[in-house]
Amino acid sequence: MIDIRDIEATAKRLEGTAVRTPLLRNHALDAAAGGTVLVKPECLQVTGSFKIRGAYNFLSQLTPEEAQRGVVAFSSGNHAQGVAAAGAMLGVHTAIVMPEDAPRAKLENTRRLGGEVITYDRYTGDREAIARDLANERGAVVVPSYDHDYIIAGQGTVGLEIARQCQELGVSPDHVLVCCGGGGLVSGSAVALKHHFPDAKVHSVEPEEFDDTARSLRSGKHEHVADSARSICDALQAHTPGKLTFDIMKRLLSEGLTVSDDEVRGAMRFAFQNLKLVVEPGGAAALAALLAHKLDTAGKTTVVVVSGGNVDKELYAEIQRSG
Amino acid sequence: MIDIRDIEATAKRLEGTAVRTPLLRNHALDAAAGGTVLVKPECLQVTGSFKIRGAYNFLSQLTPEEAQRGVVAFSSGNHAQGVAAAGAMLGVHTAIVMPEDAPRAKLENTRRLGGEVITYDRYTGDREAIARDLANERGAVVVPSYDHDYIIAGQGTVGLEIARQCQELGVSPDHVLVCCGGGGLVSGSAVALKHHFPDAKVHSVEPEEFDDTARSLRSGKHEHVADSARSICDALQAHTPGKLTFDIMKRLLSEGLTVSDDEVRGAMRFAFQNLKLVVEPGGAAALAALLAHKLDTAGKTTVVVVSGGNVDKELYAEIQRSG
Repeated sequence: MIDIRDIEATAKRLEGTAVRTPLLRNHALDAAAGGTVLVKPECLQVTGSFKIRGAYNFLSQLTPEEAQRGVVAFSSGNHAQGVAAAGAMLGVHTAIVMPEDAPRAKLENTRRLGGEVITYDRYTGDREAIARDLANERGAVVVPSYDHDYIIAGQGTVGLEIARQCQELGVSPDHVLVCCGGGGLVSGSAVALKHHFPDAKVHSVEPEEFDDTARSLRSGKHEHVADSARSICDALQAHTPGKLTFDIMKRLLSEGLTVSDDEVRGAMRFAFQNLKLVVEPGGAAALAALLAHKLDTAGKTTVVVVSGGNVDKELYAEIQRSG
Repeated sequence: MIDIRDIEATAKRLEGTAVRTPLLRNHALDAAAGGTVLVKPECLQVTGSFKIRGAYNFLSQLTPEEAQRGVVAFSSGNHAQGVAAAGAMLGVHTAIVMPEDAPRAKLENTRRLGGEVITYDRYTGDREAIARDLANERGAVVVPSYDHDYIIAGQGTVGLEIARQCQELGVSPDHVLVCCGGGGLVSGSAVALKHHFPDAKVHSVEPEEFDDTARSLRSGKHEHVADSARSICDALQAHTPGKLTFDIMKRLLSEGLTVSDDEVRGAMRFAFQNLKLVVEPGGAAALAALLAHKLDTAGKTTVVVVSGGNVDKELYAEIQRSG
């Protein structure tokens, strides 16, 4: 299991690659929470989401032989862009299996970054099998989306930055809200955050129908979501927590929270109107939990990770219009 | 004429009021410029634009008697919100004369912040006369939009932050692009920037039909724009440079640049797609100049100020759709 030293070493490895995103404050957000809110806008990250952190960390540790054979990944889009960008930086060929209905922005950006894109049907295809077959055929390494120490440590640099930025500001976070698909971001971040702020409560936030982590945290074992589960959050559609990520989450996380698609839409509108940030549905989940008062934030200091901003303009306009 | 000490003192006065916005980098932007680009996103500022800086600096230096009688301002919206927010922080009544066709977001936010809003017709009314009459009636001080040392020093803290952030990053800016209405932001920022980086070229950026500063810089005297001038940039519709601001601009600015409304729209789309920032038309002017290659930025370090993000969702959606 990774510890703070792994994340610190990873942060050094990422210098000059992933940017240190700021920690933002906003009056309207403080007013909505009745306390102090700090926003970590990973939508401002290279490739528009935090995923470059884990992807670069993984690809930079391939052996020369592995690097030469290239890598394969499967992703709804943000991991895809992260892997493609890291591959471009390191000169590694990247092939990425993506759902054919992934946001166009994510498909196009992945290709623009030099990724070879292979599409499949999200509801009938088995992306893991497609990626595995492709990797076997080429002798290529598969870049996991979340369940690998290098990926978890990479995403955990978000939590390390938050901890350091809170120290610089002289504040102690009471709660940290982090969106959760497979759990790479929230588990890695929790390792760094709980090291520096043992009393901070770290919460996963998931779409209502993809509440596998919330239920798994309650039962203490891997729970699964139904195949019929749907959400506007294309980036948060994992069906059960990862093995490694859940081992960390069980140990370090507080209650798992869930949000409805309407709450997510409301958070995207709030981010447009007040934060002036373009946020994608999955990226808005933690903000949605705060704005929908899933936690008591009155008089407290709450950190919210806004994890990505890769959303198609048509969907964005529709969501802004519907408010 | 203000100097670096005035801006440094102002920066101290603004601590805890205006936030220090970050300096962002983005791969797509570097690629578009063929060099290094640093974005100063004042759309992330309290009230969604830099205007709180000058407004707070001005209101915080009222005498107790003046503070009690309240203030009057005229503004297309960003100065209005800045004055209203500063008034709310300092317990000063604020009355603001705004065009009736100002963006709804700006009108609503000004009211929400506690400002008393008086509307007029942008093309037939004389906002200065309306504000002056109101101020006389109430014995209230008028808060100038740009042509006052306190306002210029306040907006100049943007330039001071850029200079310090460039020093922290170990880079020297070759060019700094700043949007320009009456010139408060670009003149104040130039004072700070030229103090720390004498070789940096600071450029004003205006809408094509509101090119009074560009022409005035060329001729060396106050030039005016026609009453028929129109632009999508509601925040940049000054008809001639301010007296104080022009004295500074004449001394410190390099060539004035202009951008078309279409170039502004393109910059707003670029900011959505790549920077994940919500930018209003006037706030996108400097970015538009960069993207439209109004300057040779190849191999250079260019700082672009994105000055505001207060745009109505309908206009925003229309502009995103049109690309």
